[in-house]
Amino acid sequence: MQITLAQLDFIIGDFEGNTSKILTAVAEAKKVGSELICFSELSICGYPPRDFLEFEDFIRRCKLALEQIATHSHDIGIVLGVPVVNPQPEGKDLYNSAVFLYEGKILHTYHKCLLPTYDVFDEYRYFEPGNEFKIVEFKGKRIAITICEDIWNIGNENPLYINCPMDVLILQNPDFVLNLSASPFAWNHSVNRLNILRTNVERYKVPFFYVNQVGAQTEILFDGGSVVMSADAKVWDEMPYFESCVRHYQLAQVTSSQGPGEQVKDKITLIRQALVCGIKGYFEKLGLKKAILGLSGGIDSALTCALAVEALGAENVRGVMMPSSFSSGHSVDDAVSLAKNLGIRYDIVPIKSVYEPYLDLLNPLFEGKPFDVTEENIQARNRGMILMALSNKWGYILLNTTNKSEMAVGYGTLYGDMCGGLSVLGDVYKMEVYALAENINKEMELIPQNTISKPPSAELRPGQKDSDSLPPYPLLDEILYEYIELRQGPGDIIANGFDEATVRRVLKLVNTNEFKRHQTAPVLRVSSKAFGMGRRMPIVGKYLS
Amino acid sequence: MQITLAQLDFIIGDFEGNTSKILTAVAEAKKVGSELICFSELSICGYPPRDFLEFEDFIRRCKLALEQIATHSHDIGIVLGVPVVNPQPEGKDLYNSAVFLYEGKILHTYHKCLLPTYDVFDEYRYFEPGNEFKIVEFKGKRIAITICEDIWNIGNENPLYINCPMDVLILQNPDFVLNLSASPFAWNHSVNRLNILRTNVERYKVPFFYVNQVGAQTEILFDGGSVVMSADAKVWDEMPYFESCVRHYQLAQVTSSQGPGEQVKDKITLIRQALVCGIKGYFEKLGLKKAILGLSGGIDSALTCALAVEALGAENVRGVMMPSSFSSGHSVDDAVSLAKNLGIRYDIVPIKSVYEPYLDLLNPLFEGKPFDVTEENIQARNRGMILMALSNKWGYILLNTTNKSEMAVGYGTLYGDMCGGLSVLGDVYKMEVYALAENINKEMELIPQNTISKPPSAELRPGQKDSDSLPPYPLLDEILYEYIELRQGPGDIIANGFDEATVRRVLKLVNTNEFKRHQTAPVLRVSSKAFGMGRRMPIVGKYLS
Repeated sequence: MQITLAQLDFIIGDFEGNTSKILTAVAEAKKVGSELICFSELSICGYPPRDFLEFEDFIRRCKLALEQIATHSHDIGIVLGVPVVNPQPEGKDLYNSAVFLYEGKILHTYHKCLLPTYDVFDEYRYFEPGNEFKIVEFKGKRIAITICEDIWNIGNENPLYINCPMDVLILQNPDFVLNLSASPFAWNHSVNRLNILRTNVERYKVPFFYVNQVGAQTEILFDGGSVVMSADAKVWDEMPYFESCVRHYQLAQVTSSQGPGEQVKDKITLIRQALVCGIKGYFEKLGLKKAILGLSGGIDSALTCALAVEALGAENVRGVMMPSSFSSGHSVDDAVSLAKNLGIRYDIVPIKSVYEPYLDLLNPLFEGKPFDVTEENIQARNRGMILMALSNKWGYILLNTTNKSEMAVGYGTLYGDMCGGLSVLGDVYKMEVYALAENINKEMELIPQNTISKPPSAELRPGQKDSDSLPPYPLLDEILYEYIELRQGPGDIIANGFDEATVRRVLKLVNTNEFKRHQTAPVLRVSSKAFGMGRRMPIVGKYLS
Repeated sequence: MQITLAQLDFIIGDFEGNTSKILTAVAEAKKVGSELICFSELSICGYPPRDFLEFEDFIRRCKLALEQIATHSHDIGIVLGVPVVNPQPEGKDLYNSAVFLYEGKILHTYHKCLLPTYDVFDEYRYFEPGNEFKIVEFKGKRIAITICEDIWNIGNENPLYINCPMDVLILQNPDFVLNLSASPFAWNHSVNRLNILRTNVERYKVPFFYVNQVGAQTEILFDGGSVVMSADAKVWDEMPYFESCVRHYQLAQVTSSQGPGEQVKDKITLIRQALVCGIKGYFEKLGLKKAILGLSGGIDSALTCALAVEALGAENVRGVMMPSSFSSGHSVDDAVSLAKNLGIRYDIVPIKSVYEPYLDLLNPLFEGKPFDVTEENIQARNRGMILMALSNKWGYILLNTTNKSEMAVGYGTLYGDMCGGLSVLGDVYKMEVYALAENINKEMELIPQNTISKPPSAELRPGQKDSDSLPPYPLLDEILYEYIELRQGPGDIIANGFDEATVRRVLKLVNTNEFKRHQTAPVLRVSSKAFGMGRRMPIVGKYLS
């Protein structure tokens, strides 16, 4: 039996476009003689559809698309993901289902049993868990169909769940397993995914065909990396990351021979690819092409710019240098070198002529109070306004350049440097920013060395350095990682050898700056715990604050 | 038996403060001879604690607080809400529990069974559903303890769930039912709540003691309105809305006599109280006092200002008029009248001197393109910046004045009039804004009549009116209500008699402006479907857009 796996990039709710992509892959599979083609989870509407699932009209359109696709299943089995209405009066209205189409009809339907409801996932908000576990017979083969999380509770060892669908399905002696996934990227997730698949295959001794969605859905990035694993728990093939891909596999070959195997996984390279995919996907899905960003001469904006050029092309990226009287001499020079290295258009727009009128206007209302964070923020907001004005006039999207370390501790100005339609580095710690810059410079120096080596500064008052107000980044990043990713409390972090006062100060900064993060752009998620929909915190509270 | 119900306002994670509030109520209950006191859901940590629940340190502190409170239970039964660790390896880590303390020990623990996971609720993200339904015997009485949603699936008629805890508990012949709730306000919810209680009592024929949390948790407002319902399904007492309240009830009296009964419920009055509670709670919980806002002379800022004065006092509210060359003569006059009526400090800060330098600076980069939304946005952002500068310099919180109709269709400037720490009217449709203004003016004209009667305008270009770009508000609001609250699709709304082109245009505006709402302040929730955590939409999609 020849099986086609289609790792595709869908647009949420774009039924026409998604159906067309699905039918193109079906046509290709037919052409090369496949008997079965499998798509990713909720492929008809794209994943995650979020509260669109609560609209009957949306569900009706899913059904219409399914019916249209069914008419193309006369000589091929098509397995795809679609929300299906729960016919029972009790329980949630929908199932997250895989439908097996053949000969124009629905041959089999499987409902997802394990519904991730943590981090960025909200599946129990919408779906009733399935509780029927039947294999489907097709052309003499017995196929177990599962959806994403269903294979993540092997032998009930995942504490989140109390069921293990595969433990039931295996009793019916399947010849192989299909898994339809929409499993988002995190830099350490592709390794986890292979481990989970390996543990499954070691337990159940049948080949697995795992199809993942690919592409960016605003903040959530899907890396693809679909996997075929042979019954001896070897990776027979792993599809590329961050690329649409349709491949065909001979079941007999998968069970008998060695395949191309898995891809290289390097943390920083993966993050770079993910960010490029995130920028590209955001623009493509909005039907826009051009980005603008402020270039301070610092490393965050330099890296964001280099990634934007990689994603959109130099001709679609425009940089703006906005020096003030507090800017050091090298700031504009470094930013100009970067722009020249990358070959982008840039403009130098000093903010003095818009900054000073604010002081003149507001000074009477400041009633003699000294220069403080207010004046710093005015400068940052002058810059935000200039960028937004150019963005509005020319139809650019403003890219936000704030990194995760700054966003965590609130080191940024709301409506100033925190402006932008998309936060490129909001899930990238400062030390990872450096590593990405080095990665980009590997072949040739695109990001000026001075940008990398000078001490970070917001340059909003004379001689300011980040280290005046924050612990050194290597230390800060470690404390943040323990608190944000590992969810350690202050006691645990201090016990790990960090200075108590520093730990308490950092945690307090994180918790009291939730209000700023509430108002920032969506953050491209590359870690297992990003700011945004995956981390839901009270804005007003008194815990560690 | 005398029973005390404590309807209190907790701060999320403020273990010391919450414990102290609980112990004060316990002392009062003891003093008046109560044998039992009952608090609201998750009273120890406050509801909703959100992802703080994922921190072991947070759970440990809940347990410590519980132990401390237990030492005060020697001569009174104390029932309160607390997250309890699930001892099983399978399933979620925690239960959402009610603990019955007596004689310094835990007499009984009940785990919530029905976990709301819709709208603003995420309970299945954290909690394993309880599946043990046992009444507790205390001083000769048999008590059924339930938590919030547990009583919202009477006889399994709520399609969300497949269990009905009360159907099991009633078999054990309880003398009365306690319900610990954290049930958020929506203007039509207090009626729903009484209906649900009534249906329960009619089915189970025992008195219900229902204790609700009170107070604002950023966007989610808890109205209290705790209820004692006698076994003949009459409201024996309903506690006040939006006020902390501790009251004592004789069980015998509740079963034999008539109580004070329920409160009057008027939609607009309730919304007004809710918004005042929301503003007050936000400031109090942040430990801040003073608000600033822009006064345009229009009705949204006028209403926001009046509500702020009601919540914080005139001495704590400051208004800023920021006329431009496009402002009509009456704008400043109307705003000044309002400020004088309310007795607040105000300043007039014309934006010309900061607006024109932007044009001078940016015109070369605009390359002769005509005046468009860019210049409109610059003005709105000039104003946002002035307000934020004053907010920074003086430690005010900027109140956002955008209403729900504008927020829905994206009729506002990001980083301009959409600035602010808290959105007061973001869940109030324009026609409700008018009704609230009339309500406030009932006793005396605080909001100038001209502000109410003039046609709404953003005044960002000559002669501009809202109706130039939007359908008339009475029509717009109805379409928005059908789409947002009722989740009707375009077909249904058109079938209800609305013009097709208008419907499609409005729905498209709603869906394509999700990116703006992603970056706005938390919205005080007064309807059953507010923007924010209760409405989770893809930012980039192609559904109805």
